[in-house]
Amino acid sequence: MRYSDAGVSIDLADGVKSRIGRIVRSTFTPRVLTAPGLFGAAFAGVGRGEVLVASCDGVGTKLTVAGMVGRHDTVGADLVNHSVNDILTLGARPLFFLDYIAASRLDPAVMTAVVGGLARACRSVGCALIGGETAIMPGWFSGLDYDLVGFIVGSVAKRRLIRPDRLVPGDVAIGLPSSGLHTNGYSLARKVLFERAGYGVEERLPGLRLPLGRELLRPHRCYLPLVHQHLHRVKALAHITGGGFYDNIARLLPAECSCIIRRSSWRPGAIFRLIQQAGDVPDFEMYRTFNMGIGMVLFAAPGQVDAITNSIPGARVVGRLVRGTFGVSVV
Amino acid sequence: MRYSDAGVSIDLADGVKSRIGRIVRSTFTPRVLTAPGLFGAAFAGVGRGEVLVASCDGVGTKLTVAGMVGRHDTVGADLVNHSVNDILTLGARPLFFLDYIAASRLDPAVMTAVVGGLARACRSVGCALIGGETAIMPGWFSGLDYDLVGFIVGSVAKRRLIRPDRLVPGDVAIGLPSSGLHTNGYSLARKVLFERAGYGVEERLPGLRLPLGRELLRPHRCYLPLVHQHLHRVKALAHITGGGFYDNIARLLPAECSCIIRRSSWRPGAIFRLIQQAGDVPDFEMYRTFNMGIGMVLFAAPGQVDAITNSIPGARVVGRLVRGTFGVSVV
Repeated sequence: MRYSDAGVSIDLADGVKSRIGRIVRSTFTPRVLTAPGLFGAAFAGVGRGEVLVASCDGVGTKLTVAGMVGRHDTVGADLVNHSVNDILTLGARPLFFLDYIAASRLDPAVMTAVVGGLARACRSVGCALIGGETAIMPGWFSGLDYDLVGFIVGSVAKRRLIRPDRLVPGDVAIGLPSSGLHTNGYSLARKVLFERAGYGVEERLPGLRLPLGRELLRPHRCYLPLVHQHLHRVKALAHITGGGFYDNIARLLPAECSCIIRRSSWRPGAIFRLIQQAGDVPDFEMYRTFNMGIGMVLFAAPGQVDAITNSIPGARVVGRLVRGTFGVSVV
Repeated sequence: MRYSDAGVSIDLADGVKSRIGRIVRSTFTPRVLTAPGLFGAAFAGVGRGEVLVASCDGVGTKLTVAGMVGRHDTVGADLVNHSVNDILTLGARPLFFLDYIAASRLDPAVMTAVVGGLARACRSVGCALIGGETAIMPGWFSGLDYDLVGFIVGSVAKRRLIRPDRLVPGDVAIGLPSSGLHTNGYSLARKVLFERAGYGVEERLPGLRLPLGRELLRPHRCYLPLVHQHLHRVKALAHITGGGFYDNIARLLPAECSCIIRRSSWRPGAIFRLIQQAGDVPDFEMYRTFNMGIGMVLFAAPGQVDAITNSIPGARVVGRLVRGTFGVSVV
């Protein structure tokens, strides 16, 4: 028996690796010190007084939609932008990124599209895609072709590290518009739209500009360019991902401090209304599963609000911190 | 419909997260600046003159064996040790680690065992487990329960960064013993042992001290404690993982420099002989799939060899670099 009998072709993998090597080199910054293909990647260290900020995420079952539509160049942007937003909540800017792709079999065209998407999103924020792992595991997945995971490291001056412990009752919650579902809630969205309602990915539905599949694949918005010049005005940032408004705001709240979000302050996009109607999903469930059109919530003292809302398109006050221990309430 | 109807329970996930939070805190070093549970984790930066070294890896289908045996506390050590070895090849010591666990459903006992294993392995090398992601994706996997991926960042003084470009013909290859298959070749091993030979995980086989399943689960050896005091004597290190001797040594070789590995210089352990016999696997295939009992190869100038082999148990000369363009030859 040979390894290829077990479904793993090292030769094919080597071919893809070299193509991927060329793509990732296009993201390299002068601080990348090693060529692709070693056991690890070296990156010129940050200065004293800088803090590293790291985060890890996957794309989740949005990958299933990518497979249904047959389009694999957008999920890379989802992953990179999700990760950039995560470390942005601590005030950090991206330095480098690593990806992990696991698949039952190696499809060179899909792999190249995925890594091309990762690289494009990395380049647009000056982040070097310095490494990664492609794991071919025969028989590993059912119902989809691959998993995609990313790790990001960024940095911020220690005195600018954003710690939510400065939040106090009276601070204002400012919502920034999302571009769609971003990267969360796809298990529920797929069940409602494809299983219960029986829609197909090519379906044209009222209120949606694109066919349903493409609408669901809209890439996760990157908030770095919108937010970075306001970081000194902001006390905390909640990235509205898995767990929706409840979990993602709750993890920032100091003791005795709760948050009221007023949903009348914005109108969720058509895709969210469609899911809620088609699935008969209760409001509470919607706001703890989806971003409902608000992908990032900034918290700032009242005196800082105008400067932020006047300069970020679509930014608006969506709630307020109050004294209390109820946590997060969406009213 | 609710999110839990789609197979995702956020409440259960929150319970596990808090238990995992307590476990990961046990790995925290004074340089960890944030509590678990934020969107990212902050780590005190490295000094000027230090270089960051990052790597990413998965456990692969060794996880399937863990599922067959019903033991989930060893795969964490596999992942951490594999990662520590990868960055060790550039001379780096670990700073922090993040993990990604994807599962079709959340099994709190399995999850706690996995993270407990990660944390133990991290503590033993002074590495902080600062973050991670648990993704519940219903219907995601067939034939196994979860995937486990890790991401490590370490550092090394810039002048001590190991770059293999100093290798020259005449340099000596020194092999360090592995503890078993480590984390590679499990697709082939499982096919040969369980499908073709029909063995069970409880099987007691000649030459193996433990039942077959436990033998296959032996944790990946961590070479940091053995090697770190010799890093100044070493020109390059090859971690013998996926691709075996061929791919992992080839990626280090400068142009005009090739490597001859003499397999008569050590005897592969019983597990490798068992796989080769049961699967009728050609020699070439064995040495490019498995580590064959040598998990790390150090390359050093001849004058440094005795100092290394005299102080690392089991270390022995296994080959040599020669002028040539054939790459790697196992003779």
